[in-house]
Amino acid sequence: MGTTQLESVPEPKYWHLKTVLTDALDSEFAVGEILPNERELAARFGVARATLRQALEQLELEGRLQRRRGVGTTVAPPRVGVDVSTSQQTWPGASDDAWQPVECGSAVPSAAVARLLDANGEEPVHTVRRIRVTHGQSVAAELLYVPAGSVPGLSAIDAPSGPARARAVLRELQHLDLDGQDRAVELGSARADDAKELDRLPGAPVLVVTTRYITGGRTVAASVATYRADTCRLTFGDSGDLEISDELPGGKKAS
Amino acid sequence: MGTTQLESVPEPKYWHLKTVLTDALDSEFAVGEILPNERELAARFGVARATLRQALEQLELEGRLQRRRGVGTTVAPPRVGVDVSTSQQTWPGASDDAWQPVECGSAVPSAAVARLLDANGEEPVHTVRRIRVTHGQSVAAELLYVPAGSVPGLSAIDAPSGPARARAVLRELQHLDLDGQDRAVELGSARADDAKELDRLPGAPVLVVTTRYITGGRTVAASVATYRADTCRLTFGDSGDLEISDELPGGKKAS
Repeated sequence: MGTTQLESVPEPKYWHLKTVLTDALDSEFAVGEILPNERELAARFGVARATLRQALEQLELEGRLQRRRGVGTTVAPPRVGVDVSTSQQTWPGASDDAWQPVECGSAVPSAAVARLLDANGEEPVHTVRRIRVTHGQSVAAELLYVPAGSVPGLSAIDAPSGPARARAVLRELQHLDLDGQDRAVELGSARADDAKELDRLPGAPVLVVTTRYITGGRTVAASVATYRADTCRLTFGDSGDLEISDELPGGKKAS
Repeated sequence: MGTTQLESVPEPKYWHLKTVLTDALDSEFAVGEILPNERELAARFGVARATLRQALEQLELEGRLQRRRGVGTTVAPPRVGVDVSTSQQTWPGASDDAWQPVECGSAVPSAAVARLLDANGEEPVHTVRRIRVTHGQSVAAELLYVPAGSVPGLSAIDAPSGPARARAVLRELQHLDLDGQDRAVELGSARADDAKELDRLPGAPVLVVTTRYITGGRTVAASVATYRADTCRLTFGDSGDLEISDELPGGKKAS
C-alpha cells in the first residue's frame, strides 16, 4: 500500500500477462483442454509464478479457466445461462421448478435470518435446503426460510425431516397468494456446506441471490441461493435467456 | 494440485482465520476503521502472511473489507442496493435515469459486439459511455451500443462526440417502442478503463450486467454495465430494494 495516485498507476504486470494468455487461449487451446502446469507456463511467458497465478485468477474470475483439484487448470466452456427472473411470480416448489429439495429442519432463526424475514426471532422457522441442477451439473444451493406461521397447515403427521418434510413445507406454501418478490444479487464466497454441494473449495466466488416472498405486504418466506460464479450467468427478463458472447466481460475492449 | 477427494479436504487454514477475523470485525472494529497492517495482523493471529492475505481476500469478496491504495484495509460499510429491475421497460436515458453520459463514439463493431446485437458487423454502431453515481459514488460504468440503423433521426448537426453526442443518441432512442429487455448478470473482472472510472485496480471483481433491448423482435440496442462488486448489491423486483443483512452472505451459517 503506497500513496500512489490512481492516474499514475501503470498497468499491472499480471494484467498484461492476462491479455497475452487470453489470446493464447483463443488461438491454441480447446474447451476442456488442460493447461501446462504453472512452472511451465511461467517459464514460457518469462514471468514469476506469483504473477502467473494472479493472471490465472483473473481468467478464472472471468470464467475462461477452471481450476479443478486432481485435474489441473482447464479451459472453461461458455457459462450456462440460469433463469432467475421474477416475472412468473410463482412459489418455490411449483411444478416447473428447477430445484430439488434435499433436507429440512426447524429452529429458532439466527438474528440475520429474523431480520431478513422481518420476524421477531422467537417463532420457529422451517429451513428447506435445495439444490439446483442444470445440464446435469449442480449450479446452486439454497436455504429457503419459512416461518412456522406461514404454513399453519403443516401437519405433525408429515415426515419430521429430510426431502419428504421439505416437500411438505413447499406444498403448504402453494396455498398462499404470492403478491410479489424482492430480489438482490451480490458477490459472496461459498460457505463450507455450499462449497461441498457445488464441488468448489470453501471461499470460492459465488453469486448470492436473496429473495423475499411477499403476501399481503408481509414477508412470508425468504431464500438465500448461492450460484457458482465460475460456470453460471444469471438471466432475467422477458425471454429468460440471453446468449452473451463469452468474450465480452472477459476484458476485451468491445468496439 | 493433488488428487485429493473433495470429502477428505480439511477446512483450509485461511477459512478458519476468516471466521476468526469476521468475529473480530464484528466486535472490535467500526465501519471505516483502518485495520492494522498485514505484518501486525499475521503476528496477532499467528499465521503466515500468505494465509492472512487469503483470508483478507475472502472478506473483500464478501464486502466486509475494502482495500484502498494509499489508505490501507478498512472495514467496509454495508453494500448499497442498486436497482437494476427490468419491470419499468424504459429506454436508457429516460428522465429518471441514474446514469450520466460521458462520451460517445461511432465505429464498425467488434465481432463480440456484433454478436450481442445480432448484427452483421458492417453497419456502424454508436457507443455511448455512461457512469452511474449513487450516493455520490461511482458504482458502475457502461457501454451502450446503438446500431446507426436504430437511430436514423440522428442528425449530422448534432455534436460529433462527447456528452452532447451521447445525449443526442439517447434522445433518438426514446422514439422507438421498447417491447422487452433481456438481462444477464455474471462475475467479471474490471477492464482498465472501467477500473479507473470506478476507482479500482484493473482486474478487480465486478458484476457485469448485459442487457439487450428488443423492438419488434429485433435487438435495437445493447449495453454492458460493470458494477463494483465490493460496494454494490443489485436489486430486482417489485419494490426495487431489499434490505439484506450484510451478515448473511458473509459465510455465517444462518439458522
